[in-house]
Parts: sequence; structure tokens; C-alpha cells
Amino acid sequence: MDTTFRYCWEDFAPGQVFEHGSRTLTEEDIVRFAREWDPQRYHTDPRAARDTPFGGLIASGWQSCGVAMRLMCDAYLNESSCVGSPGIDEIRFLKPVRPGDTLRFRSTVLKSAPSRSQPNRGTVSFRWELLNQADEVVLSMVGHQFYLKRAAR
Amino acid sequence: MDTTFRYCWEDFAPGQVFEHGSRTLTEEDIVRFAREWDPQRYHTDPRAARDTPFGGLIASGWQSCGVAMRLMCDAYLNESSCVGSPGIDEIRFLKPVRPGDTLRFRSTVLKSAPSRSQPNRGTVSFRWELLNQADEVVLSMVGHQFYLKRAAR
Repeated sequence: MDTTFRYCWEDFAPGQVFEHGSRTLTEEDIVRFAREWDPQRYHTDPRAARDTPFGGLIASGWQSCGVAMRLMCDAYLNESSCVGSPGIDEIRFLKPVRPGDTLRFRSTVLKSAPSRSQPNRGTVSFRWELLNQADEVVLSMVGHQFYLKRAAR
Repeated sequence: MDTTFRYCWEDFAPGQVFEHGSRTLTEEDIVRFAREWDPQRYHTDPRAARDTPFGGLIASGWQSCGVAMRLMCDAYLNESSCVGSPGIDEIRFLKPVRPGDTLRFRSTVLKSAPSRSQPNRGTVSFRWELLNQADEVVLSMVGHQFYLKRAAR
């Protein structure tokens, strides 16, 4: 196991905020992702999307989740002792993400607890948000992750 | 608006089950997705993954979500009047997905309600699950979607 983690379980304290970004999604980015994973007409076909309640192409919500995840990896996760996630709660698609939108990531630590069954790790719960260039929150969720303790490295 | 939808809001009744699949994820599929969206070492590097608690490469949970979404599109969503999703609850990553795993999708209607504010649509909530070749549920979530009513076509 790599012993050079910058962030271990002890390093996440409730209230702590990480911000990172940005990433701009082009029409090509949106269509390419959607063709593979979520080929609904308002994600893949700019012309057909005009005749939907969205009035034009919007990104798959799963792509927004992917953008959040990637920005999280670049912000701190890939320098951390994270060893997976039990799950995610309360994903909310609050605003459509449209071609040209520039997204940034905000992560706020909600709570932290040592594992009862595995003394070398703990759980951290976060509010993960994606904001657009108008500072509107377009995506929000509560994510949970396992992190090894520093002493366990 | 296309008036040939096979599934409208009225067509989803609590207890109804859709099953669809399958999709096999190769090591290359897993690494390619993770390099773009979730480049944690146990998703991108088979060698480094051996020294993690997973003991080998596993798929990003977001890729499992993508597989579920794609199988849902192929099963019924792309023939439906779906006009988006307010969100998703209780995503649980129950078992690791490993290279060579073959996944199928199961969707169970939990509840259905007409919209209070928009008379031409309703909401449907589902249990969405992904099962592997051993019939183990590897991913579970509760998804909510808006569907236009048949009368509104």
C-alpha cells in the first residue's frame, strides 16, 4: 500500500470545504457520453431536444455525476487513502446542464465516524455539489466513503 | 412531440417488473471509463489494484450506474414519454463489479403519482438493480422520473 497519502480519514473534519474545477462540456462531449450510457433524445439529438420540455440539448445527469467525480479525484481523492464507497444518497438534478456550461465542484464534509468493525478505517460523509458559471448549484448529492486511518498506513 | 410512445405515465403500475440485459464489462471497458471519469487506482491500474482491499481491478460505481441506465434505455426508456428525473436516492454499491462480470438490469415500479403542478405529467419511482452472472445484486438505487400522460401526447 502506498504510504504517501496526503489525505487520510483523520484529515476530514465536519464543515471543511474543498472547491475544485472547472470543466466545460461541449455539445460533442454531451452527445458522445449519452450515445454510450444514456441515449435519450434530449441528450443525443440537438434537433429532437428542441421539441422536449428542455427546449434543447442537456447533459445526462450521469455525466454531471461523472464530472463531479473526476473533479473530486483531481481535487483530493487521488491523493487520499479512500478505499471505496458504500453508496450515495439524495442525488438531485437541480438545473439542466447545457452545451458550453462550465462546471466546478464543491465538497463539504458533513460527518465522520470510525468504523465499528474495521479499526484501520473510518467513514466520511460529504455534500457534493456541481455549480455552473452563474454560481447555480446544478447537481447535489450526499456521498459516503471509506478512508484508511493515518495510523493504518 | 413524437406521439408514438409505447410507455406513458399510465403504463407504470406499482409492482410491475422490467428485466433487461446483459452487458459484460471487460478490463479495457473498466479502465477506459475510469481514466476519464473516476481515475482511482483500483479502477485504472490492475497492478496497483492488487494492493488495495479489493485485491484487483473493480469498475467505478458510476460505470455500473451507466450500465444500468443504458440497459434501462434499451429496455423501455427510449420508447417512453420520460421527460427527465428530479433525482435518485439510496444508491448502494453492494458488490464489486470485476472484469468479465456480466450484468443485467431489473426495474421494479415502487409508486406512481400525478403531478400537482403540471396536469400533463406524473412521477414514477422505481427500484433499479443491477445483477451479476451469479444473480447477486451488485447495485441498487431508487430512481424517480417524470413521464407525460398518454392523454397529453
